[in-house]
Amino acid sequence: MLVASNRGPVTFVRAEDGGLVPRRGGGGLVSGLSAVAGATGALWVCAALGDADREASRSVPGGRLAPHDVDRHLGEPVGAGHAVVRMLDIDALTFHRAYDAVANSTLWFVHHLLWSTAFTPVFGAPFTREWEGYVAYNRTFAEAVAEDAAPGAKVLVQDYHLSLVPGMLRDLRPDLRTAHFSHTPWAPPDYYALLPARVARSLLEGLLGADHAGFLSVRWARAFLDCAERVLGARVDRAALTVEHAGRTTRLGVHPLGVDGAELRERAARPDVEARRAALAEDLRGRRTVVRVDRTELSKNIVRGLLAFRELLRGHPEHVGEVVHVAFAYPSRAELPEYREYTAAVLRVAEEINDEFGTDDWQPVVLQVEDDYARSLAAYRLADVLLVNPVRDGMNLVAKEGPVLAEDGCALVLSTEAGAAEELGGDALLVNPYDVGETADALHRALTMPPEERRSRCRRLAAAATAVPPERWFAAQVDALG
Amino acid sequence: MLVASNRGPVTFVRAEDGGLVPRRGGGGLVSGLSAVAGATGALWVCAALGDADREASRSVPGGRLAPHDVDRHLGEPVGAGHAVVRMLDIDALTFHRAYDAVANSTLWFVHHLLWSTAFTPVFGAPFTREWEGYVAYNRTFAEAVAEDAAPGAKVLVQDYHLSLVPGMLRDLRPDLRTAHFSHTPWAPPDYYALLPARVARSLLEGLLGADHAGFLSVRWARAFLDCAERVLGARVDRAALTVEHAGRTTRLGVHPLGVDGAELRERAARPDVEARRAALAEDLRGRRTVVRVDRTELSKNIVRGLLAFRELLRGHPEHVGEVVHVAFAYPSRAELPEYREYTAAVLRVAEEINDEFGTDDWQPVVLQVEDDYARSLAAYRLADVLLVNPVRDGMNLVAKEGPVLAEDGCALVLSTEAGAAEELGGDALLVNPYDVGETADALHRALTMPPEERRSRCRRLAAAATAVPPERWFAAQVDALG
Repeated sequence: MLVASNRGPVTFVRAEDGGLVPRRGGGGLVSGLSAVAGATGALWVCAALGDADREASRSVPGGRLAPHDVDRHLGEPVGAGHAVVRMLDIDALTFHRAYDAVANSTLWFVHHLLWSTAFTPVFGAPFTREWEGYVAYNRTFAEAVAEDAAPGAKVLVQDYHLSLVPGMLRDLRPDLRTAHFSHTPWAPPDYYALLPARVARSLLEGLLGADHAGFLSVRWARAFLDCAERVLGARVDRAALTVEHAGRTTRLGVHPLGVDGAELRERAARPDVEARRAALAEDLRGRRTVVRVDRTELSKNIVRGLLAFRELLRGHPEHVGEVVHVAFAYPSRAELPEYREYTAAVLRVAEEINDEFGTDDWQPVVLQVEDDYARSLAAYRLADVLLVNPVRDGMNLVAKEGPVLAEDGCALVLSTEAGAAEELGGDALLVNPYDVGETADALHRALTMPPEERRSRCRRLAAAATAVPPERWFAAQVDALG
Repeated sequence: MLVASNRGPVTFVRAEDGGLVPRRGGGGLVSGLSAVAGATGALWVCAALGDADREASRSVPGGRLAPHDVDRHLGEPVGAGHAVVRMLDIDALTFHRAYDAVANSTLWFVHHLLWSTAFTPVFGAPFTREWEGYVAYNRTFAEAVAEDAAPGAKVLVQDYHLSLVPGMLRDLRPDLRTAHFSHTPWAPPDYYALLPARVARSLLEGLLGADHAGFLSVRWARAFLDCAERVLGARVDRAALTVEHAGRTTRLGVHPLGVDGAELRERAARPDVEARRAALAEDLRGRRTVVRVDRTELSKNIVRGLLAFRELLRGHPEHVGEVVHVAFAYPSRAELPEYREYTAAVLRVAEEINDEFGTDDWQPVVLQVEDDYARSLAAYRLADVLLVNPVRDGMNLVAKEGPVLAEDGCALVLSTEAGAAEELGGDALLVNPYDVGETADALHRALTMPPEERRSRCRRLAAAATAVPPERWFAAQVDALG
């Protein structure tokens, strides 16, 4: 078995003495996979993310890091378990073109409907070079997998960075059984068609090289079918979720990733979280809380969340002085100008609200911009209302973590455009993320919900959230390959 | 028979002596309708667009302007023929909310996919007031029609400003036979869902109050069906183009508006056009031309057109010094900040190109920002290539006018996202409007196409463009009502 993803379970930093020190890899995907991939003894193929990673990769043949290469400097395991990691030495320019320009500035944008179409995207000569980088990056992965995979091995390819790998593997190693999993939404056909025709075709044909293509929700799987039909003229079966193209059939699967409740509760009970919980409770002085936890990502809709909180205070004066919006907005992709502009808007609107309503005694919005996972967990524990209002989101794990940890049960205000809405919609208060009026109404309803209703909804939300923990999610992908 | 549209065939300006002087109403819709509506003796219901219109409206009972009220100060007829015009005195604030805020900043944006979703739209308390204005504006139209329509009369309601009128008329006057026509694209369901739920429902139910709902292309009609199915749960028949909802059936029709070839040629042969043709020919000194004619509208994609022209010059030096891009970019909606930003981008990129390539002898881009219809017609006559690359466009009449007038036949580079692509796609060079590389390649192909191929394609384009002139288009809508 092999796993391929951009980020691996380990990354290296340079110590003061010039040596390389391994760290646990970041990102939600890695956390979900690390625990389970290791246990299977899979080979995990990933990219070197920076110069320290490149040096580590070059220090061992083919970038193959055995567990002892990874763990020898570490007090605690990095989370790869016994997986062998193959870290691919991809040059910085190719990596930049594939990761920043194509994956994060193009594919992320198309699937999340983030472009401002009068101005962006522009597919000209620079994009042609970037796309060549993406192809080269995918080829490096495909060749590494082809080289190391045992006959008939199963290969689990992760996410939009590696869309071309299944198709390339189909050519290089037709004996392999390949699954791809999309952790993002999928664009509807009219929006997917913004991509250059050859790119739109290549991405679909790349994924259709897989035997099994997984998605986080039925909606994203259907959008993929719509695109395959429209762009490739593929024959699709919307009930069976299959696509026939170029003489092959790819089965689609819907695997809604959830959280491991026991592990999450254990983590949230540790001393670092306890200390932050105590500090936050003291700051709140018995006030109620609307909590959000997000990266400052264009799709997360933090600004409209703040605007909704402002409409709540303007429209329902009974909440003035009584509720605190604790908004975690961690830094993200600050190298992109849109993200810097967005971060500035978050800060500005938060200040405006505090300026309009704040008193010596009460700060309506407490914005936390420094990444602190333990503090997020502490906030979940104290949340009365959890606000998860992305404009579009593959799944959204915040909506699943919060209800598991809320000590007195939280009400969940959830965007219809999050993949998680398919599982949680029955007990969440669903909102159109663009409609701050509706969101304000939902916040009011959440804050005034009878406690017993809130607790019973929260129990059902937590049960749904933990129905498919990472191990089961991973196993389902493996099983789907037969 | 009654016609209802925001703009009417006449509008008033104030003369120096304080009196009111009628002028022919502006806009493509009005030109198309004026000639034919008048001939049928229809009553044309429209809005007072400004204070002079409001005063004219108040000067006659109910705002009903008989032909002699309109024509008495005019040397030439205003184009209403013998239609009686009822100009509705809608107060400036309601008009602003309905026209600027809802119609042009919300409905136009949703159907053209123009939002920058991380930042816009925001549906909060201000939008709620704006929407109330849109409802009131539509009600004023519906009540005026209900008041003046003879029993069983046919009513032709035009465009996205008046989406609610058919539904309101269904309640007020169920005896009437009502058609609605959408001159814009229609949004795909995932994008249409950005609208607040009640607004999304109201607009669809408003249109479904009509017996017949017309669209400019099959694609927009299908998108409407998709939205009706998704949002309302309506029963739709994609082959028959019908929608069943609330116990009624609305038939959809596709009526691709074309141009009146004879009238257009006559207009383009007048002395004012001849003079501009001569001046332009002298400026060109035998060089070839890529012509575009647009309002500086976010959806028209002028900036990427310029970028494609730059890629053409960079990638094909043989065109340097030999081709002039004559770009008409007339002012539009300068009251909206996005439009001012867009206009600035057009000017900046044009300057950059002239700076990079221009010589004492040759200015690569000639940007015309002052509205001059005769000069546009002169440019069509001299065009070697016509560039029509909107990101999304209901129809696009430029793509139809140009081939009719091009003296030596023009090659048409046309966006797949223009409604006109359905009729003209066989002989145009189709491009993805976001792909400036592909657009540059198409410009090169257009400039190097053998003259006989160019002429024969252009003849077929002109034939397709004139297949449904406004009279036939209008008659088809009337016929569709039985």
